[in-house]
Amino acid sequence: MSIDGEPLKEMHPPDHPQSVGWTTAKKAALFTEKLFELDSGGKIGPVEMEYETYGELSHNKDNVILVCHALTGDAHAAGWDPDPQGPLRQYRRNKPGWWDSMIGPGKAIDTDRFYVVCVNVLGSCYGTTGPSSINPATSRPWGMSFPVVTVGDWARQQVELLDLLGVTSLKAVVGGSMGGQMALEMALAYPDRVEGAIILSAGHRVTTQGLAFNAVGRHSIIHDANFNNGNYYDSRRPLAGLAVARMMAQITYLSEESMGFKFGRRLRGKQSPDFTLTGIEFEMESYLNHQAESFVKRYDPNSYLYLTRAMDYYDAAEQWGQGDLRVTASKIKARTIVVSFTSDWLFPPELCRELVSAMCYARRPVTYVNIPSKYGHDAFLVETEAVMRLIKSFLKND
Amino acid sequence: MSIDGEPLKEMHPPDHPQSVGWTTAKKAALFTEKLFELDSGGKIGPVEMEYETYGELSHNKDNVILVCHALTGDAHAAGWDPDPQGPLRQYRRNKPGWWDSMIGPGKAIDTDRFYVVCVNVLGSCYGTTGPSSINPATSRPWGMSFPVVTVGDWARQQVELLDLLGVTSLKAVVGGSMGGQMALEMALAYPDRVEGAIILSAGHRVTTQGLAFNAVGRHSIIHDANFNNGNYYDSRRPLAGLAVARMMAQITYLSEESMGFKFGRRLRGKQSPDFTLTGIEFEMESYLNHQAESFVKRYDPNSYLYLTRAMDYYDAAEQWGQGDLRVTASKIKARTIVVSFTSDWLFPPELCRELVSAMCYARRPVTYVNIPSKYGHDAFLVETEAVMRLIKSFLKND
Repeated sequence: MSIDGEPLKEMHPPDHPQSVGWTTAKKAALFTEKLFELDSGGKIGPVEMEYETYGELSHNKDNVILVCHALTGDAHAAGWDPDPQGPLRQYRRNKPGWWDSMIGPGKAIDTDRFYVVCVNVLGSCYGTTGPSSINPATSRPWGMSFPVVTVGDWARQQVELLDLLGVTSLKAVVGGSMGGQMALEMALAYPDRVEGAIILSAGHRVTTQGLAFNAVGRHSIIHDANFNNGNYYDSRRPLAGLAVARMMAQITYLSEESMGFKFGRRLRGKQSPDFTLTGIEFEMESYLNHQAESFVKRYDPNSYLYLTRAMDYYDAAEQWGQGDLRVTASKIKARTIVVSFTSDWLFPPELCRELVSAMCYARRPVTYVNIPSKYGHDAFLVETEAVMRLIKSFLKND
Repeated sequence: MSIDGEPLKEMHPPDHPQSVGWTTAKKAALFTEKLFELDSGGKIGPVEMEYETYGELSHNKDNVILVCHALTGDAHAAGWDPDPQGPLRQYRRNKPGWWDSMIGPGKAIDTDRFYVVCVNVLGSCYGTTGPSSINPATSRPWGMSFPVVTVGDWARQQVELLDLLGVTSLKAVVGGSMGGQMALEMALAYPDRVEGAIILSAGHRVTTQGLAFNAVGRHSIIHDANFNNGNYYDSRRPLAGLAVARMMAQITYLSEESMGFKFGRRLRGKQSPDFTLTGIEFEMESYLNHQAESFVKRYDPNSYLYLTRAMDYYDAAEQWGQGDLRVTASKIKARTIVVSFTSDWLFPPELCRELVSAMCYARRPVTYVNIPSKYGHDAFLVETEAVMRLIKSFLKND
């Protein structure tokens, strides 16, 4: 599927032999005794975590692949969920997991060989505790009183769940975009538990442009008349602000070439413009509106604030190498592959290469591929064939 | 000055020999008898036009240069206005005109030789009739009942004023960005009146990305809780929506390189983050907030809708060549120079080259320069030295 949550045609139905079939989200309650201490200084507990697993855990528990989701993703990475839970998750019904193209029997991440785990991140709105969850102390949604979370917190969160499952080592951790940041962080924070890292369309930090776009997206939500400092769960939600954040982000997921090819200057269902300012003239506008409309039904504005901020804070050079990415890179033990896409300007190839160069300098085992694609940042979910081949061959070496 | 309205240090004070000195905006009332018929089918009249002039009109009225302003600009292109009029124009006080670096005695656009005219466009909020002007029929602001305007309308508007001044031919028309679209349109619509065209950071159309960003900016304004279908002049204005539109646009005026150099990931006045979602963490955020705050004080949200829509509608290939840019190009008689900047991704060099190639194909006299710059779209206002040299040598040939 593409990053915008629309399944691609190549998805297998649940009865296809390469599908993981029907799935159900699992829940785990963690930090019921001690609190989860976060990078921000906040503490939280208990934490309910939503996750999914595909395939069978081997006797030695040594066949685990951890899949990390992106900004608007969730634990439902593969298969079909017949009964999605939660008010914002009805969009899942009759839709495959967000990486169904990659995960299944005989697929790139082969569930006949691997036990695949995907965990929803802290702060999200898809089952793991987040700002829309009920704070047990007040019996009301956390809202902005939810502590600020980081990519580092997510890595620790995932390891807590793996510990619960008795899993001490990972054949690989894999993710794209925000998920790629998490994959990198797992390799840095748990060098002795991560054997392989597959980092797609991500870098050791966001670009300054990425930082700026995320800031504007949050500004749009925070200054929506309905925001009410995040306490909107009993009233109208700041969906106009979230819509604008999403529309803008959507532009950054595509490329001029792919947008030009798909929409260009084509008018929406007419030969000449209506000369309207508030109505739709161009196909491009219609597409962005549609994206926003479907997104605001399934996403919590507060979660958008927390997750984009975590992406912005992430700076592996600073956090692991005191500003020197080569020092950071020297701490990675995992066999690593970094994949960028030529037209991705949100995590551009130049940025991805910084990490690769640093790993080369530190004599760490890294492979780098820059895939020619016109699909921009979206490519990591759209260029299925190319990504599949790379992941398959990376995992074959195990 | 830079595109964001902040004067650069190189500006000359009004008593400097290369300054045009103190200026005053002029007003002209047009379409007092017949109505102005617009491309959209709308009709409007009378139209008050605000303009400024610098230098002396020659006896034969053959030394005129028309300067066209960009999206957020106005008629105040050079000099210092001691008494700026209008509620939104106080920002002018003690600030030089937006292109003071280029216009003055001995400067690139030499007011010792040329009579320079700059007209504020229809639909703006800086003196020419626009949505914030009073509709004489209702004695209330036009708001969204103001007719939709186009770049073609602006060209006709400018010629109406030139007719009033008795000017029948232009030595050159010059503009950047939206002003560059206007310069091109002048050359196309009035081939026998325009001897030279200087088109900076502009093309025959906006990119699909540009179309998309403009659409999101308008969406942000229109869906602000205070928008009230444009009838907000008696109450709170949709400034939150305008702020977001501006912040986003600001990103498109810069480049990753210039933003990275100027702000990077630097925190705002602290060594470590405060872990706040609604507060400022990064310098980048602080800059964007500041940009938005100063912009919303001086711009009318409705004008932002009208002017960005006009930019989006403009497609010289479609409007003059039935889709074939070479046919369009063949209609230009003016000696033309097109200038792009390497890091401009709003009007990227590739787009500018399309017009240049078409003019070459049609054997029209065109010069093309792609200036190496890290300043993105802003470069046309920031790369003063390089632009000055080109304009000076272009105008020397007359």
